[in-house]
Amino acid sequence: MPQEKEHNRRVILASRPKGAPTKANFRFETQPVPKPGDGEILLRTVYLSLDPYMRGRMSDAPSYVAPFAVDEVLGGGTVAVVEHSNHPDYQQGDWVVSQSGWQDYALSDGRCLFKLQGPVLAHPSWALGLLGMTGFTAYMGLLDIGDPQPGETVVVAAATGAVGSVVGQIAKLKGCHVVGIAGGEEKCRYAEEKLGFDRCLDHRQDDLEAQLKQHCPDGIDVYFESVGGKVFNAVLPLMNTKGRIPVCGLIADYNSSGELPQGGDRLPLFQSAILRKRLRVQGFIINQDYGDRFEEFFRQMSQWVAEDRLVFREHIVDDLEEAPEAFIGMLEGKNFGKLIVRVASDRPGEQK
Amino acid sequence: MPQEKEHNRRVILASRPKGAPTKANFRFETQPVPKPGDGEILLRTVYLSLDPYMRGRMSDAPSYVAPFAVDEVLGGGTVAVVEHSNHPDYQQGDWVVSQSGWQDYALSDGRCLFKLQGPVLAHPSWALGLLGMTGFTAYMGLLDIGDPQPGETVVVAAATGAVGSVVGQIAKLKGCHVVGIAGGEEKCRYAEEKLGFDRCLDHRQDDLEAQLKQHCPDGIDVYFESVGGKVFNAVLPLMNTKGRIPVCGLIADYNSSGELPQGGDRLPLFQSAILRKRLRVQGFIINQDYGDRFEEFFRQMSQWVAEDRLVFREHIVDDLEEAPEAFIGMLEGKNFGKLIVRVASDRPGEQK
Repeated sequence: MPQEKEHNRRVILASRPKGAPTKANFRFETQPVPKPGDGEILLRTVYLSLDPYMRGRMSDAPSYVAPFAVDEVLGGGTVAVVEHSNHPDYQQGDWVVSQSGWQDYALSDGRCLFKLQGPVLAHPSWALGLLGMTGFTAYMGLLDIGDPQPGETVVVAAATGAVGSVVGQIAKLKGCHVVGIAGGEEKCRYAEEKLGFDRCLDHRQDDLEAQLKQHCPDGIDVYFESVGGKVFNAVLPLMNTKGRIPVCGLIADYNSSGELPQGGDRLPLFQSAILRKRLRVQGFIINQDYGDRFEEFFRQMSQWVAEDRLVFREHIVDDLEEAPEAFIGMLEGKNFGKLIVRVASDRPGEQK
Repeated sequence: MPQEKEHNRRVILASRPKGAPTKANFRFETQPVPKPGDGEILLRTVYLSLDPYMRGRMSDAPSYVAPFAVDEVLGGGTVAVVEHSNHPDYQQGDWVVSQSGWQDYALSDGRCLFKLQGPVLAHPSWALGLLGMTGFTAYMGLLDIGDPQPGETVVVAAATGAVGSVVGQIAKLKGCHVVGIAGGEEKCRYAEEKLGFDRCLDHRQDDLEAQLKQHCPDGIDVYFESVGGKVFNAVLPLMNTKGRIPVCGLIADYNSSGELPQGGDRLPLFQSAILRKRLRVQGFIINQDYGDRFEEFFRQMSQWVAEDRLVFREHIVDDLEEAPEAFIGMLEGKNFGKLIVRVASDRPGEQK
């Protein structure tokens, strides 16, 4: 069932996942399209961004943002078109970045909208990736916390993902030796051949640590952390003195049950490494920590895009009904590039 | 056997400790007092600083500084008097901070000496504590990494120790709510009554976490880490968003065997806290990281001392022969204040 004018399809959080989410955690419902009141705008979703952080919000464990409510529509970043506006700053046909969530239509009072203008309109979905939240995450985490210097070695987890692919490319622009880590030969080849990484290693191989050591002969100065788990374990022994670890995610742990993993406690090892190597380990949430620097990011990134110095791959899934399966697959590393749901035609004014 | 003019008593690392050091790891020997050559200075040790970091250097595991060599004299910071000088910048009777180690006499070529002048001569041993390495560690770790703001809550481990006692007092000078953690009722009372902490909790009590929660009603903004272990476990759940954890030591782990502690792996929990709470966790080694800021520290700290705004307690042990036992006890928390060995009389020119 495609998007239509009369009905608003919504994806509801039916229940909280225990461990990996399943389709049973999602429910579809259809409602009438809401009517905008005074000062309100009716938005029609064109693209929905699917991102790993959403897994955290599906749980009610304390997290950095409030959990999604059960029986409510799932939240998420979207690129939308203004269908009707009672707001002086917006008019029909405007393209915006909004937080409409997993649904066809949403109302907005104009707050927290970001109007798309200029070259980004050629790729509106990039406003959710390269020029949006994930690119912003890559840019600030790498440059502000990672502070990479020419000649240093930068290791990037999830190297072909929406964040990692941009981290590695910016690190190359800064003159670093860049080694990516990704799942599978195809992704690794892509990172080396298209993204220009010096090397990309497959974390599915048994000898990840040995390979990493071989390809980081001078150790690791910056590790951009977004996965945790065994990739982190392989990286830690190779971190150099005064190394930096920006932490923007821990996808390997998102589906964990909450029980402590069995085996010895590696926490003292990590603490000891922080002390001995004088590491700086810092978590960040892009909008909370760097919201006031979005313009700086957008200007610099748009310039690099205009100069054709960045490659960005999207994994586009058609139709809102495919969103749950695409999301479940993303947590297993099945996507290849920034995962985006094309909810409707991206040609203005045309229904899909 | 006291210090004398003809012989140089030396404490030798006889063997590397496994776990907690024992007296069998130390050996005493006596050598002739060395003769200074051209450009050299003969230093006579008056005070020897005993510090937890030395435990790390007794092992040959990779650490932030080279290990002590077996069958060599143990290293360490000292306050010494120039007995004889063939160096134009030093003359007999000068007091200096040196790295003479665990022995009565040492030669120096003048490098890495710091001449004591002015008010500190009233308390020369303070040059190893309040106005020396441990005070410097407290000052930079708290102010540069911890960045405490008025009204914030600062928690300090090893609250009556050489570093912790100064951290807490500076935090009070900065207008913070300060909660210390120490071992035993006497130390806790001292921290509250003499050091002016708002509260000091005994980590030997079973309900440390509950008490910490009660006395940090607004959570913890800065945790100054020097112990690790169970104190850290109690602190972590209470850390506030954007909290800072300077790490200058992990005394609880220094005597560990190197095997992973049994029980579940808490590393993912820590990583998750770093991410969710956007913590900054940063290890530092005072001289390597802040060597160029010693003057700034010394000037500010000397001023606070002159204004009588800081209290500093020393635990002075007489005689070099007591050094091994005092050191072993320090790792068990038996000292109360900065541990110093008075190797010889501290009145210039007088042998003890």
